[in-house]
Amino acid sequence: MTTNRTVRLMSRPIGEPKRSDFEFADESIPALEDGQLRVNVKFLSLDPAMRGWMNEGKSYIAPVGLGDVMRAGGIGEVVESKHPKFAIGDFVSGMTNVQTVCVTDGKGFTKVDPKLAPLTAYLNVLGMPGMTAYWGLMDVGQPKAGETVVVSGAAGAVGATVGQVAKIRGCRVVGIAGGQDKCDYAVNTLGFDACVDYKAGDVKKALRAACPSGVDVYFDNVGGEILDAVLTQINLKARIIICGAISQYNNTTPIKGPSNYLSLLVNRARMEGIVVFDYAHKYKEAAIEMGGYLAAGKMVSKEHVVEGIDTFPETLLMLFKGENFGKLVLKVG
Amino acid sequence: MTTNRTVRLMSRPIGEPKRSDFEFADESIPALEDGQLRVNVKFLSLDPAMRGWMNEGKSYIAPVGLGDVMRAGGIGEVVESKHPKFAIGDFVSGMTNVQTVCVTDGKGFTKVDPKLAPLTAYLNVLGMPGMTAYWGLMDVGQPKAGETVVVSGAAGAVGATVGQVAKIRGCRVVGIAGGQDKCDYAVNTLGFDACVDYKAGDVKKALRAACPSGVDVYFDNVGGEILDAVLTQINLKARIIICGAISQYNNTTPIKGPSNYLSLLVNRARMEGIVVFDYAHKYKEAAIEMGGYLAAGKMVSKEHVVEGIDTFPETLLMLFKGENFGKLVLKVG
Repeated sequence: MTTNRTVRLMSRPIGEPKRSDFEFADESIPALEDGQLRVNVKFLSLDPAMRGWMNEGKSYIAPVGLGDVMRAGGIGEVVESKHPKFAIGDFVSGMTNVQTVCVTDGKGFTKVDPKLAPLTAYLNVLGMPGMTAYWGLMDVGQPKAGETVVVSGAAGAVGATVGQVAKIRGCRVVGIAGGQDKCDYAVNTLGFDACVDYKAGDVKKALRAACPSGVDVYFDNVGGEILDAVLTQINLKARIIICGAISQYNNTTPIKGPSNYLSLLVNRARMEGIVVFDYAHKYKEAAIEMGGYLAAGKMVSKEHVVEGIDTFPETLLMLFKGENFGKLVLKVG
Repeated sequence: MTTNRTVRLMSRPIGEPKRSDFEFADESIPALEDGQLRVNVKFLSLDPAMRGWMNEGKSYIAPVGLGDVMRAGGIGEVVESKHPKFAIGDFVSGMTNVQTVCVTDGKGFTKVDPKLAPLTAYLNVLGMPGMTAYWGLMDVGQPKAGETVVVSGAAGAVGATVGQVAKIRGCRVVGIAGGQDKCDYAVNTLGFDACVDYKAGDVKKALRAACPSGVDVYFDNVGGEILDAVLTQINLKARIIICGAISQYNNTTPIKGPSNYLSLLVNRARMEGIVVFDYAHKYKEAAIEMGGYLAAGKMVSKEHVVEGIDTFPETLLMLFKGENFGKLVLKVG
């Protein structure tokens, strides 16, 4: 590649991000300095958290600057290197951002092995969503065999991993997802014990039927009405992991807080937020364990791949419309 | 006393409890059976939680039955006993309920010593509010010296104890209370470092000024807008103790959930509910410690005493109007 196709954030979206919030350009590729490497980007990870990165204001990570290339994790191949740790032909994972060519000092980049797992799995079970799922579940959720674990966004990248790991740990696993197809997938392919279709009607009632012993751990990716419904079903000393709130990210009105939060009091229960970066020192431990499950066929890593960097704005919206089925990945070039 | 003046719950209040929700009567006193004692009630504890006990439905304790004497903790003197553990002249603390004479099997009753502390202190720092404050703060809040602890309802029974214990533990203590008088009291008498008057305007701004290093522990007695304001000021790994939500108890509309709950995610923070009864096996430990502080003049136990059992409905409402100044106690007879 002789030019770099970039997608820059030009305005802070109000509600859903629009194509006009971004600028597409073909830019020249700078010559490498010592300590840098050049990566041809193959796949980009599209995640709900990206919506938050577009907003101004304090969060767990600085917002993307206006005019900057949109932040994204990605996988690519090293095509030139003046970095001692990376050689031409290496496959790497890191914050490549939404562009076709990434010139970087390699900070935060790690090599990945395409022989051990498909490249896209390094954006899914073996990447950020997998690490989020594993450490949120383990560190905050602390599931015990026999307990009931509920996870929303069950067919998504994080949710699918949460449920599969909890199942391996001996829990009863109940998903919440939108549509019969996703629910069937959670039960038949991912091995969940049950899955509630939130589009099919009364979530509270369906949840009660699926969780006859109540809910011990709830891994929340969605917030809103579903969080409130689960709060009515929790057990004494339940743990609720606040991982995200995809139902609220495009709000132009104030976020809906959980009206049933006093269930935490009644049940002496806990609600705790997590951010995956806190577990960076433990990524390897989780990747080795889950890599083993993948290799042994005990876990599934399903990606939904859409092609073409220029589709970025519309493809990202699939997450918020619930149109992706598995980890959403953008194939570049 | 030859008759028992009783206050019975006759209907489940909608919004604020009204006099017409209760029935007042003079009832005859049954003869004691073996294993029972008769207590002349001296003081009743009036607490925000009583509002919840009047509602139908599942909670951490069964609702008061319609037609039953309203549930309340109290202090009284044993005037007749067929119980091996209690003798005439003993002062006791327990669920006497809202009546002047309590005939009981002694379950849950303990002797209190009027020489060690005034009787009303056994409904305050040395009673349920004190135990709630102490164990909520210690077990969930886990304050460390140098951290900032914020408590709402700062001039109330629980809030005053939370702040005083946190201060003794070496924390910066900031109260939230309604009105300059209560705030002055928190600072000048209870020894808080600062106190925000929520009636005086912008709570978030005042809180930011009072907590220059952010909030590490928040003990919430009120819920609503104040909980939301504190959520904007919490530090990484903050602990929020959900003890109550007095601002919401008389709602006839749905409870307002904390819109800013995603601050838990950004700050990897925790929100956890407590119920005092879980710490029954540790009451003695806290009472010995705080009894020592009271005796040494390191802690204050302030009660707001209103006289006359027939004032019960209106006196209880003082809690929700913020009219009490210190632990609200009803003097009986």
